[in-house]
Amino acid sequence: MTKGPRGLQVLSIEGIPEIGRGDPIGELVAARAELEPGDVVVVTQKIVSKSEGRVVEVDSSDPASKRRLAESEAVRVLRRRGDLVVTETRHGFVCASSGVDLSNVDDGFAVLLPVDPDRSARRIRDQIRVHAGVEVGVVVSDTFGRAWRRGVTDVAIGCAGVAAVVDLRGSLDGLGRELSVTEVCVADEIAGAADLVMGKSSGIPAAIVRGVDPAWLRESSVRDEIVRPYGEDLFR
Amino acid sequence: MTKGPRGLQVLSIEGIPEIGRGDPIGELVAARAELEPGDVVVVTQKIVSKSEGRVVEVDSSDPASKRRLAESEAVRVLRRRGDLVVTETRHGFVCASSGVDLSNVDDGFAVLLPVDPDRSARRIRDQIRVHAGVEVGVVVSDTFGRAWRRGVTDVAIGCAGVAAVVDLRGSLDGLGRELSVTEVCVADEIAGAADLVMGKSSGIPAAIVRGVDPAWLRESSVRDEIVRPYGEDLFR
Repeated sequence: MTKGPRGLQVLSIEGIPEIGRGDPIGELVAARAELEPGDVVVVTQKIVSKSEGRVVEVDSSDPASKRRLAESEAVRVLRRRGDLVVTETRHGFVCASSGVDLSNVDDGFAVLLPVDPDRSARRIRDQIRVHAGVEVGVVVSDTFGRAWRRGVTDVAIGCAGVAAVVDLRGSLDGLGRELSVTEVCVADEIAGAADLVMGKSSGIPAAIVRGVDPAWLRESSVRDEIVRPYGEDLFR
Repeated sequence: MTKGPRGLQVLSIEGIPEIGRGDPIGELVAARAELEPGDVVVVTQKIVSKSEGRVVEVDSSDPASKRRLAESEAVRVLRRRGDLVVTETRHGFVCASSGVDLSNVDDGFAVLLPVDPDRSARRIRDQIRVHAGVEVGVVVSDTFGRAWRRGVTDVAIGCAGVAAVVDLRGSLDGLGRELSVTEVCVADEIAGAADLVMGKSSGIPAAIVRGVDPAWLRESSVRDEIVRPYGEDLFR
């Protein structure tokens, strides 16, 4: 039976500078946090994309320019309302504007999603191993809307070293009966927890979630575990 | 500018007994946790529903009985695949089986959602005020799937004394530009964080999230702040 831990800490990582192309995020995190083995480091997509040079010019005076860029980043446009588009990205994410974002970036530029956010997470994890000497999990988070609920929440778009989905199949409930809900997306819950200490407007792009169940610390992938293939979907 | 806090603790509340009709959840929580002012107490829908007598008989040998019950609890059936239904409940929630659940309940019975989960949260908050003498926020959580992501996460179906959605409109990003993402569903992020220490199989039905931004502690409602009205929806 997989048991949850009994206490977590969620700590923001202060002092990370404005990130530019080539900046080593794992090294910057390692220098600013007292990391412990088994910590999960959550970093926002925004700084990961900036470090990977995923920044393009955009005409910010033209409201349609973001939509056109979003469409160019999509494999499918699912819904369109004015200049708002909900798309499916090459990664298989369904989100507004293919994740294209004009906030927290210089005027006239837009940030795109990382090409392979699981790979980004692995790279950050490896940098932390080298520079802090500890084995951590890493989640790359982004802010997505939801079809039927207002407000956005942070979810995982990439991960390394920590489960994306924990499978409780075969576990028994408190009364000894087989659980009907069997797959829990802990990476999304970890990303959301981290957002509670980061905040969209405070400019803190990284946090630690300390105390997760050690059984969750394993090789992992958002693409393989969380992305729902087109054919499985009831709502696309 | 709303700033997130710099550190959170997420603590499970141990020792809550099996809940039956009429059991005072707020009093039971207050007796088992060292609550502090500003804590957010998260309790699972399951124990709230049980305490409110929202338990009905069901023929557990008939796989269609859960679907029929779910349909009777729905205002709309959105998708059907075999005996799985995705519905819109009277509350406006879009979820599997109208939230009807056969796990963690005696064989031959099913648990329905509370009639008014915001009211349930207020009642628990008031009980805690009386029995622990502290003002806390309360979130009633339930486990929902998502249209385009595998795995379930816990979300808020009711709340009291803590914001469901925090509006950052008018806030500036780290570079001094207006934020494009303005409404963050902190109640869902709090519910998900709490799930990380409760776990579906460990039978812990309550947790504390300590250290949330004091600006979030206010009157609130999942129904008014999170439920997306039918007419706003792009995917129903």
